[in-house]
Amino acid sequence: MMYSDIPSAQTLVLYFKSRGIKNIVTSPGSRNAPLTISFSKNPFFKSYSIVDERCAAFFALGMAQQLREPVAVICTSGSALLNYYPAVAEAFYSDIPLVIVSADRPSYKIDVGDGQTIRQKNIFDAHIGYSANLKQDITHAVDAVQFFDNGYGKETQEDIQKYNQEKIAQALAIAIHENSPVHINIPFEEPLYGTVENLDVAINVSENFVDKHNEIENWEEFISIWNNHDRKMVLVGVNNPDTIKKEVIEELANDSSVLVFTETTSNLHHPNFFPSIDSIIAPIEKSDDRQELFAELQPDVLVTFGGMIVSKKIKAFLRTYPPKFHWHIDTKKAYDTFFCLREHVKMAPSSFFKTLYTSKLVVKSNYQKHWAKIKEVYEAKREEYLGQIGFSDFMAFNQIQKAIPKKYQVHLANSSTVRYTQLFPMDESLKVYCNRGTSGIDGSTSTAIGASINFEQPTLLITGDLSFFYDSNGLWNNYIRPDFRIILINNSGGGIFRILPGKENTEAFATFFETAHQLTGEHLAKMFDFEYLKVTDEQQLSDCIPDFYEASKKPKILEIATPQTQNDKILLTYFDFIS
Amino acid sequence: MMYSDIPSAQTLVLYFKSRGIKNIVTSPGSRNAPLTISFSKNPFFKSYSIVDERCAAFFALGMAQQLREPVAVICTSGSALLNYYPAVAEAFYSDIPLVIVSADRPSYKIDVGDGQTIRQKNIFDAHIGYSANLKQDITHAVDAVQFFDNGYGKETQEDIQKYNQEKIAQALAIAIHENSPVHINIPFEEPLYGTVENLDVAINVSENFVDKHNEIENWEEFISIWNNHDRKMVLVGVNNPDTIKKEVIEELANDSSVLVFTETTSNLHHPNFFPSIDSIIAPIEKSDDRQELFAELQPDVLVTFGGMIVSKKIKAFLRTYPPKFHWHIDTKKAYDTFFCLREHVKMAPSSFFKTLYTSKLVVKSNYQKHWAKIKEVYEAKREEYLGQIGFSDFMAFNQIQKAIPKKYQVHLANSSTVRYTQLFPMDESLKVYCNRGTSGIDGSTSTAIGASINFEQPTLLITGDLSFFYDSNGLWNNYIRPDFRIILINNSGGGIFRILPGKENTEAFATFFETAHQLTGEHLAKMFDFEYLKVTDEQQLSDCIPDFYEASKKPKILEIATPQTQNDKILLTYFDFIS
Repeated sequence: MMYSDIPSAQTLVLYFKSRGIKNIVTSPGSRNAPLTISFSKNPFFKSYSIVDERCAAFFALGMAQQLREPVAVICTSGSALLNYYPAVAEAFYSDIPLVIVSADRPSYKIDVGDGQTIRQKNIFDAHIGYSANLKQDITHAVDAVQFFDNGYGKETQEDIQKYNQEKIAQALAIAIHENSPVHINIPFEEPLYGTVENLDVAINVSENFVDKHNEIENWEEFISIWNNHDRKMVLVGVNNPDTIKKEVIEELANDSSVLVFTETTSNLHHPNFFPSIDSIIAPIEKSDDRQELFAELQPDVLVTFGGMIVSKKIKAFLRTYPPKFHWHIDTKKAYDTFFCLREHVKMAPSSFFKTLYTSKLVVKSNYQKHWAKIKEVYEAKREEYLGQIGFSDFMAFNQIQKAIPKKYQVHLANSSTVRYTQLFPMDESLKVYCNRGTSGIDGSTSTAIGASINFEQPTLLITGDLSFFYDSNGLWNNYIRPDFRIILINNSGGGIFRILPGKENTEAFATFFETAHQLTGEHLAKMFDFEYLKVTDEQQLSDCIPDFYEASKKPKILEIATPQTQNDKILLTYFDFIS
Repeated sequence: MMYSDIPSAQTLVLYFKSRGIKNIVTSPGSRNAPLTISFSKNPFFKSYSIVDERCAAFFALGMAQQLREPVAVICTSGSALLNYYPAVAEAFYSDIPLVIVSADRPSYKIDVGDGQTIRQKNIFDAHIGYSANLKQDITHAVDAVQFFDNGYGKETQEDIQKYNQEKIAQALAIAIHENSPVHINIPFEEPLYGTVENLDVAINVSENFVDKHNEIENWEEFISIWNNHDRKMVLVGVNNPDTIKKEVIEELANDSSVLVFTETTSNLHHPNFFPSIDSIIAPIEKSDDRQELFAELQPDVLVTFGGMIVSKKIKAFLRTYPPKFHWHIDTKKAYDTFFCLREHVKMAPSSFFKTLYTSKLVVKSNYQKHWAKIKEVYEAKREEYLGQIGFSDFMAFNQIQKAIPKKYQVHLANSSTVRYTQLFPMDESLKVYCNRGTSGIDGSTSTAIGASINFEQPTLLITGDLSFFYDSNGLWNNYIRPDFRIILINNSGGGIFRILPGKENTEAFATFFETAHQLTGEHLAKMFDFEYLKVTDEQQLSDCIPDFYEASKKPKILEIATPQTQNDKILLTYFDFIS
């Protein structure tokens, strides 16, 4: 075994090992050499090397999302660290334990004109679970006078070792138990490349973290409210696959007083659930009787769980027609998304519903049945509509979603992609993810590649063109599996802006909103050694799909070109058609 | 004329106009529509559209650096803003007036689970001149109750207008007078696309900013010290072209008691100056008499101006052999780079030296002459060395620098590129830039393209492979001039790591430090419509250069492939050879 000779680097290695943090994504640099050496030379860890830190952090985020455990990213000092920020914010809002480790200069070298030096301490404070600013080891101070002049007072190396251990332990506890991103900043003095065979430090591996378990005292009140209302809505945002017990799904699905609104990202399925929220709400919005219809849909009790909600329409509806009671069920946090939150229940949703249904009381209601009929109608109309439109994003998504092989992991880019997928069924064997924490177009490709690494089945990324080209460096990655697949829906710009209210048919609109372009994925495919397929109509797409999913030696990109100026009309007309 | 109907958007437009801020770089989004509309529909402004915000900010930074005036970047809410951070930090340390404008959600919609929403206020506080967090206009509040519940108290629209004006004025004053990046964050409520023909607001265009001019009271002391020492060193970091008067250059160059050490990025030239610092210092480091030789080189007085110093060797030397007096001459700031700063003289360097030389006293000294002889020797040896080495980075830089057409603007990427250029002469008609604020490998290409837009002559970017591929999205830019030129020196990885002390000949080294790759610029050239030339030896490079600089309809990339494993030996042997 080989370790850096710097105590803080050794200490970090020991803590990662003791907490089972195995996956380390490093970016090149010299200041971080003590860490790069220690991790890459130690077989307990699996180290990955990715040059562009923006991609590296999203790659690690995807891996952490899929493994549901902390993954570390390590970079050198300076602006390298700032390139992590988009992924840090995504991890913060999506509750993903991304462990950011940055090498820093000793504090006396900050703001004196040294290269690759910025103010790294607490840099992510607005969007981080914890910032551990380690102290420099005295054993490796070049100049003791300099060192003590810089605020270290009379601390011994033992004091510093103790301080650093506490900070690292605290950061990892928060990452592990609160699923938060955390930042560990470590100042290193030169020389940076010294190594030893045996460790100079030892750590106390016991964990002192106390998980504040939240006991619910007023169960009777919850149960009574639940049993005394005949219009209850369950709305599920971003939710990890396989987290809700089958019996709970059955209880909810077979309760006629409950409407379960799911999103593609909720990974929840039952024939009695309502997976295309906008197909229910858009027709109401367009109706002359909208007030009456919304009143019919308005729940008395709203129970939410999972992360962010994609559908803007359900947000607008519930903000205008709020329920009497809104409870959010999550072990960590609750957002007051509809401005009417009454209770944050800190427990796992499955356990919550199990207790709620202990009474076995049947509440008679027509609520679910009424909306189920409406669902039947729009589903039939959607099929009819598909039969009469031209090739378009709308049609392509229908074809794509029908053809994804079972058990794939599916990553969706923002934002048109995830919105379109909501309109069509997604097979229940698929595991669906989308970065909805900040809903950025940055990092979708890197995230999907990161998530694919340890997944037992293949991974498919579905992405629009802006998101794909934004994260083109995501493909600069030596770990892409040959079964990784990308479907790139290229409508030559940000088609979503043609759907939004500001649309104009002017050059200024095309330049500044749609940001129209003529790029394709062909050159990137060649550059990064992907097989590349391209289709431009329905028939080609159908013909191409078997090839696309066939096993291969290289990963594949399937580019679907859709007409830039038809998609908005076809989507908006769909909502008219089903109304 | 067409404006957004939102008062804060109108106010920003008026302020930009009154302060002469013309160049606006927008990235696509909906939340920022009130700004995109207002600027793109107003002929006073030149709007640019760039999708990837990381590139957009560096593009704007390059433009601001070249124009020496503020340039604005505008983005939508959410993680978009975070992608600006690398350029913000570069602007902060390089004193470039980058005006960051972010559209935000109204505060009651932050942290409630809305999409593309993060905590934007003061997000760049560690590296910004000023953060103006504007307040939302009451006229455009959707829901007055909601609005007043969120901390606005009893403010009227007039109060808010006054507040917003003050904040914008303050931000722009700091950008203009202190050359700092500033951040203006503006919350917008929907609807976002409303427009009016005539403005609803008016602003007071007078500026209240008081420039704190620093009068030097102890001139006699400075002059006396200057005249009473016969070993004075002037060291110049990153410095804009044409900022030092010719007479000052002559005074310094002809003062035998003065050694002027320039860097490539200092844009200062005289045959008596010393432009290759490392060629002086490296041989001393290797000498057995190093203590004696360094003592001979050690100045009594050190005067520095300009930004960051590239040479690590001069930093190490001056930290170990500090001068009696170190004065830094800069209107804004002074870093204590050598831990011996005595005076920060807040004035323009040209004026400072002019006053210093008023006495016309000649200080007799052998200081300059002694080192001039050593310079002659290493220059001759460098030529001899070039005659006996194989094709390599070292040789390529010599060829490249000899052949750059006069008056070009030359942008250098970090970090091997800027270091190599220091070893060879750079024609004095060239204007040389490098992002040395944070010395990042991110954003060099975008910066160079931004700087080229308004420059009267063509621009050349010289870049290494990691830096080039890192910022490949920099080429996703519709404003690249056909006379823009890129020289890509591709040694298949971060060659600099082979030069640093940690080098090993192992796969782990190649993976995690050098980050070896097989990429070339060919596919990116095709994708982004560049002419592409590639050479692999000295003769091909010589033959190719005339073609490369010839006028063309498309911009051009010249890729120079150098052998991955020879460059470090050739560079290190150079320093032995001249010793």
